[in-house]
Amino acid sequence: MEFRQLLVLSAVMLTMTGGPSYGQGGKEPYVRVAEIEIDPVQLEAYQAAVKEQIEAALRIEPGVLALYSVADKENPAHITVFEIYTDVEAYKTHLETAHFKKYKTATQDIVKSLKLRETVPILLGVKRR
Amino acid sequence: MEFRQLLVLSAVMLTMTGGPSYGQGGKEPYVRVAEIEIDPVQLEAYQAAVKEQIEAALRIEPGVLALYSVADKENPAHITVFEIYTDVEAYKTHLETAHFKKYKTATQDIVKSLKLRETVPILLGVKRR
Repeated sequence: MEFRQLLVLSAVMLTMTGGPSYGQGGKEPYVRVAEIEIDPVQLEAYQAAVKEQIEAALRIEPGVLALYSVADKENPAHITVFEIYTDVEAYKTHLETAHFKKYKTATQDIVKSLKLRETVPILLGVKRR
Repeated sequence: MEFRQLLVLSAVMLTMTGGPSYGQGGKEPYVRVAEIEIDPVQLEAYQAAVKEQIEAALRIEPGVLALYSVADKENPAHITVFEIYTDVEAYKTHLETAHFKKYKTATQDIVKSLKLRETVPILLGVKRR
């Protein structure tokens, strides 16, 4: 990792970190939570598809700050995706990308239900030292 | 922010980022999701308590990588906390800290229900450039 990259990362983290000035100075990130039930027998195919789209989103989209995909330990067919964008426009842009559309097509017969929740951040605390 | 801090941050981010070697080389983070229903009339008191404990956890605990607390836009009394620790031991340590115990005491009459889910990460993708 180059020093230039570190500086950019640091700027992103400062935006995301809940210091005293959080939400006062910089723009507040836009956060969504997706709760997904998938077909358990297609778990591996689902995981491959979601990994591919997250990697592409982080690589290509400046407005995607974080996409965390996790499976419940007790029920691996229950997936949570915690999504952090710079703002709501970045989320709308994400929906129009080729990698997101590919993910939606690849998983349309795997996803049994999808609940999306818009949220308002209370505090987005992330380690920066 | 000093360069030393940037380097440590970069190490944390590399651990958390889903590159090709994620989960193969370094230790996989331990991720939990808490779903909390609070008393709507005590929203401000809850938010103050959770902010205080998150800020302390990030400042004091080396094993806490991120604590994201958000409220549903449609129902601000529904809180989600997305929690990333270096490992399960770091989570156990967190439960024993003074700031976490203070938060539990301060919110015991505010929290109406609490559902905790242990998860297995599929991909923890976070921007690092």
